[in-house]
Amino acid sequence: MSNLLTSFIETNQPLIDKTLHDLIKDLKAPQPLKDAMLYSLQAGGKRVRPLYTLAVLKELDVQNEDAIIVASTIEMIHTYSLIHDDLPAMDNDDLRRGKPTNHIVFGEALAILAGDALITLVFGIIARLPNISPELKIALIDKFSFAAGAEGMVGGQVLDMLGEGQTLTLEQLEEIHLNKTGALLSYSILAGAIIANVSEEVMSALKEYAFHIGLAFQIQDDILDLEGTSEQLGKTAGKDLISQKNTYPSILTMEGAKKELQNRYNLAFHALESIQMQNGLLVEFANYITKRTK
Amino acid sequence: MSNLLTSFIETNQPLIDKTLHDLIKDLKAPQPLKDAMLYSLQAGGKRVRPLYTLAVLKELDVQNEDAIIVASTIEMIHTYSLIHDDLPAMDNDDLRRGKPTNHIVFGEALAILAGDALITLVFGIIARLPNISPELKIALIDKFSFAAGAEGMVGGQVLDMLGEGQTLTLEQLEEIHLNKTGALLSYSILAGAIIANVSEEVMSALKEYAFHIGLAFQIQDDILDLEGTSEQLGKTAGKDLISQKNTYPSILTMEGAKKELQNRYNLAFHALESIQMQNGLLVEFANYITKRTK
Repeated sequence: MSNLLTSFIETNQPLIDKTLHDLIKDLKAPQPLKDAMLYSLQAGGKRVRPLYTLAVLKELDVQNEDAIIVASTIEMIHTYSLIHDDLPAMDNDDLRRGKPTNHIVFGEALAILAGDALITLVFGIIARLPNISPELKIALIDKFSFAAGAEGMVGGQVLDMLGEGQTLTLEQLEEIHLNKTGALLSYSILAGAIIANVSEEVMSALKEYAFHIGLAFQIQDDILDLEGTSEQLGKTAGKDLISQKNTYPSILTMEGAKKELQNRYNLAFHALESIQMQNGLLVEFANYITKRTK
Repeated sequence: MSNLLTSFIETNQPLIDKTLHDLIKDLKAPQPLKDAMLYSLQAGGKRVRPLYTLAVLKELDVQNEDAIIVASTIEMIHTYSLIHDDLPAMDNDDLRRGKPTNHIVFGEALAILAGDALITLVFGIIARLPNISPELKIALIDKFSFAAGAEGMVGGQVLDMLGEGQTLTLEQLEEIHLNKTGALLSYSILAGAIIANVSEEVMSALKEYAFHIGLAFQIQDDILDLEGTSEQLGKTAGKDLISQKNTYPSILTMEGAKKELQNRYNLAFHALESIQMQNGLLVEFANYITKRTK
């Protein structure tokens, strides 16, 4: 990882962690519910999504005190999706990032409710931000709801379930991933652009960048599941193969998947070039996402 | 029921039903997910909450084309809460309003995701409304998130779970119900006042009215569970008694519960009197809620 990106992550990860902690701690809500929400928020994620929001703003040279809060709400939605995905009725996972999953520690009922509370909370948090105009807050809520809901992440989760045990085409696999992981990752990039109130040209280029990065992220995830070790990943490696999941390597072969990953990286790079942003944090981030080992 | 209220309900219930249907039908989302969302939205609720929002606007003589959509989003949140409450890990109910519950028809995974999708959807729907200003949309989202989340409905659900098997004081029972059912019912009244952009005096009186109505609604629910028949209620009567739930009659005796219901009705009426609204739909609604038989 480059020094630029390393120092950016080292500076901002603790700020995101603290913001997440404070947003939950301040709730006037039953303590067991707050404990369950905080447990998964603090279970050691890489914070890729909120870091991306902040990276876009840094590259655009825009400072806004509320940006860290907007960024953190994306981690909250990501976290709720993991809590619900891990439930016995869904993926039935006992471990996540090497720790017992939410329902193992707090029980299924509280895990469901902690997820529900996280979804509901984020939109109120955005509505109450003091340093972003009502118009831009509405734009954030609009895109966030779209990315996280039936037409985005939740819809992708359903498509993924429906596709289990079937052999998918590349197009079908892409549709799943564009929704299941791509939509929220893309939103994390767009959220920075919305806060910065960028021109249509910049917005459009960043959307394209985000689109390709979203797919690249998932392709690398699929590759890592086969090539990474369980120790590196903090979860069982090879799980996709055992559960006969459709993945980029299973459809394209490993060589084809790596070629497609490089293709998405190139397309993301070209989008940055079109707005003269090819030399900073966003390309570093693209490198990090496509070359990460966990 | 008065003619005024009957005709109001008969006019507006079909409009709410149609709005709910259209909002889901238009989603670009996997059909099984849309089916699961629609199934519970169309399972025959009384639409008390959305009707309340529209009643407030009618009493204030304010017309806004988006009001029916705002009203319908409250029914969506109410419906998601029923879907998740009925899950095996929560109340484990197979029947709701005489029909198989969501997870019985669609499976647990889709029931969880349909609920998640409904929560996420409502905030985007409000953000995209064309006939309400960004400032008022932000106010709606702020109050809605608060009423439905950890500091409102979800928090109340957790308190209710934690209180099971314990003997509660009246204050503890009230705290549960103010959150679990009162918060969303209150919001349905406030949403009308927000859309109408009322004065602080009117807002404050309507908040007081909403507070007492929220409690009255729950007291009558508890009374009906003991005095209603299963046929009237569309669910098993006497269930609270069997599960040894804390209710108003169990804490106050049936006579005391009925006295408290009358007390809440009187306080709600006084709040309406203070803003000269004691002769219309809102007092009819209070009558309906405190005297209903299902």
